Amino acid sequence: MTHLVAIGGSDAGISAALRARELDPTVEVTVVVADAYPNYSICGIPYFFSGDVKPWQSLAHRTHADLEATGMRLRLDTLATSIDVAGQRLTVRDSTGAESQIAYDELVVGTGALPAYAGIAGLEQLTPNDGVHVIHSMGDTFALEKHLTERDPKTAIIIGAGYVGLEMAEGFTGRGIHVTQLQRGPEVLSTLDPELASIVHTELVEHGVTVHTNTTVRAVEKTTTGLVVHAEHDGQPVTHTADLVLAVVGVRPNTSLLERAGATLGAGRAVVVDEQMRTGLPHVFAAGDGVTTHHRLLGLTYLPLGTTAHKQGRVAGENALGGAARFAGSVGTQVVKVFDVVAARTGLREHEAAAAGYHPTTTQTAADDHKRYYPGAQPISIRITGDTESGLLLGAQLVGRLGTETAKRVDTYATALFAGLTVEQISDLDLSYTPPLGSPWDAVQVASQAWSRTQTPTGVLA
Amino acid sequence: MTHLVAIGGSDAGISAALRARELDPTVEVTVVVADAYPNYSICGIPYFFSGDVKPWQSLAHRTHADLEATGMRLRLDTLATSIDVAGQRLTVRDSTGAESQIAYDELVVGTGALPAYAGIAGLEQLTPNDGVHVIHSMGDTFALEKHLTERDPKTAIIIGAGYVGLEMAEGFTGRGIHVTQLQRGPEVLSTLDPELASIVHTELVEHGVTVHTNTTVRAVEKTTTGLVVHAEHDGQPVTHTADLVLAVVGVRPNTSLLERAGATLGAGRAVVVDEQMRTGLPHVFAAGDGVTTHHRLLGLTYLPLGTTAHKQGRVAGENALGGAARFAGSVGTQVVKVFDVVAARTGLREHEAAAAGYHPTTTQTAADDHKRYYPGAQPISIRITGDTESGLLLGAQLVGRLGTETAKRVDTYATALFAGLTVEQISDLDLSYTPPLGSPWDAVQVASQAWSRTQTPTGVLA
Repeated sequence: MTHLVAIGGSDAGISAALRARELDPTVEVTVVVADAYPNYSICGIPYFFSGDVKPWQSLAHRTHADLEATGMRLRLDTLATSIDVAGQRLTVRDSTGAESQIAYDELVVGTGALPAYAGIAGLEQLTPNDGVHVIHSMGDTFALEKHLTERDPKTAIIIGAGYVGLEMAEGFTGRGIHVTQLQRGPEVLSTLDPELASIVHTELVEHGVTVHTNTTVRAVEKTTTGLVVHAEHDGQPVTHTADLVLAVVGVRPNTSLLERAGATLGAGRAVVVDEQMRTGLPHVFAAGDGVTTHHRLLGLTYLPLGTTAHKQGRVAGENALGGAARFAGSVGTQVVKVFDVVAARTGLREHEAAAAGYHPTTTQTAADDHKRYYPGAQPISIRITGDTESGLLLGAQLVGRLGTETAKRVDTYATALFAGLTVEQISDLDLSYTPPLGSPWDAVQVASQAWSRTQTPTGVLA
Repeated sequence: MTHLVAIGGSDAGISAALRARELDPTVEVTVVVADAYPNYSICGIPYFFSGDVKPWQSLAHRTHADLEATGMRLRLDTLATSIDVAGQRLTVRDSTGAESQIAYDELVVGTGALPAYAGIAGLEQLTPNDGVHVIHSMGDTFALEKHLTERDPKTAIIIGAGYVGLEMAEGFTGRGIHVTQLQRGPEVLSTLDPELASIVHTELVEHGVTVHTNTTVRAVEKTTTGLVVHAEHDGQPVTHTADLVLAVVGVRPNTSLLERAGATLGAGRAVVVDEQMRTGLPHVFAAGDGVTTHHRLLGLTYLPLGTTAHKQGRVAGENALGGAARFAGSVGTQVVKVFDVVAARTGLREHEAAAAGYHPTTTQTAADDHKRYYPGAQPISIRITGDTESGLLLGAQLVGRLGTETAKRVDTYATALFAGLTVEQISDLDLSYTPPLGSPWDAVQVASQAWSRTQTPTGVLA
């Protein structure tokens, strides 16, 4: 009987374990989880702080009982410390400090990522007790919640204005905490072109968030009057003070276990895996935020996302049982809700596409989510990036109000990218239409036609 | 200088004219419109009756001035009575009865469809003055509105429970008119499987609509006490009485003009066109609800939809100027909002796929529109039809509450159908996820995985 061991209780590890049990109920599956919170939705943590999610236990995708009902065994509060690849044995340490070994036939490593500190002095030294937080685990979550409830901070500085930073700005604001958001780049949400991200910026400001862009944080310092963040703004030193500091400046792959076992690091210093999620070490698969990402337009890159971790874990779980599944590749689809605005992207932005050797050009269009004569129509701002040589769709970015089905409109582009369609073919798609929810040419197509017009000058048939 | 003449002021004719002017601003374009209402949104008429759209003029996709600003000439209240194909001349009759001729270089015929009467006695003889209505034109719309405002009917019978019938049931109900809806088939919305259409049925009943299924209407009769509808229910004669009768039992292609000019009729007795929208008559193109529909899964069929008419008109307009555009084909994507429920479909249902030679099977799943821990999550019911031999996706049907992005989720399936993806590949799609708006495996993928599980028994890798 095969014994599959998965390391990591988050998306990749659990997905691998679930897939293995689904495909072969006779396989023995053990999941080694560093904390006591397997299968928690990390993406949901900001909504716990906003008060939308109560109690915190409901953040679990599946309960402990649900997971055990699938037949997998969970080893909680257990840290994997080393892999004996030749001996097919894993050394683990439990919460008492006791070490033991687990023999495996196949191993799936899903150790994920760790918060990055971006070279900011003091960040690694200061702790939640000092009022300085990261949020990546349920432990971080409890520490921050304790701070909020016991010390009632009135002001917070959020370092970073990416997905989690923006969601936390909303969460804190909803709890009456004034947020100052510091962003290194020229605009918030640097994964979108500033022409669209500026809409998100406006939304933040309208909800009372103070946003400082072009602000590079150098150090965080604890003083008697509060936490002081030292930064540079346009080359000038500035300081900001608050009761609480939350640093959300990205993640780095957590690779030490696999590195020590002999795995190779690649893009983003993540562990290199092939499309079958094999590490190259015999019987050792890896998946999730700790590994390189196969991207359908870029080849190998590092793009950690929960959706990708689920897919990669599923592939690893199947292949660990002798399957030949392949991760079909990411196209980088992402979406975030910030107050009442939804911002989404898929594929490449113009500079990314150019760097990858394409010949991109980008157009921007505003198109109503549904027929204007029906109440409540709202424009969705859409940027289309296409290849001027092949006509291929390379990417799309969308920002619309909540309720405009922007999140699922990006999926049409994502599917088109997956299938390798041209921008012109977007107009050929048979998309749904009813006046309260769309238009005969959907907003998705109005935007693609605007791009096409830049490629087909009028009079071309004359 | 080319003179392009388009017949028909609705989607196909106007789209052809717009495309021609877009591609070549030197081309002379005349659009012959039978009434005074060019480019009106027929799909929007129910929302005029519900009171959502005011005034009726806002139902125009573009105003008369907008259209003329593109450089096209409109001949309103002008009926095209015959085509001299060899002489490239069109005979038209204006509202005074005077006939004249229009010479053309290229002709695009977009005469659309007419209401069907489904063999119901009295329907063609009784008029709006009698309280019996159809709604297909702005003239029909004004007649019905006049009835509603001047005679204040308390009760209405709607014959038919398709898209327009359901939308009108909502519209009448919103105005305080009690609706009795009579449907020939075993369930409302016969374009969906009854397992999902029943959700729409429940929504109608919960909003006070009386629904009678398995009810075949034989005749409509005007009596001194009101309008009497004679029907059969399970083989037994039944009668229903109301102040107003609205018949929405489908449409038939309006082909007489092209038939007399020598065009060939095909599927659904619509005019046969090729993928370039050529009728086979020299210099005569046709598009819209009057012509056969190229369907990517079925080949030639008849499936009149506004979205298709827009695309076909655009192709005809381009080709009339010497282009070689092709209508890429419909996949039959449709959506309707009925009160607070959204019902959508794309592709084929099981019996349609079987009739077309596929080997289909269908599964049904309910999957939340977003993570359950975030407030407001609602299940979307999804039926997936796939081919058991090739694994290809053949169709999807979805019913969800308003606000669940069901209308744009069907577009992901529609795009997958367009690209010829397998059901299994739906799981490979990189779809957007944020807890308030989706799940790591989107509902679209949860449903496709349920289908895949029926094809890959557990233990297959053991």
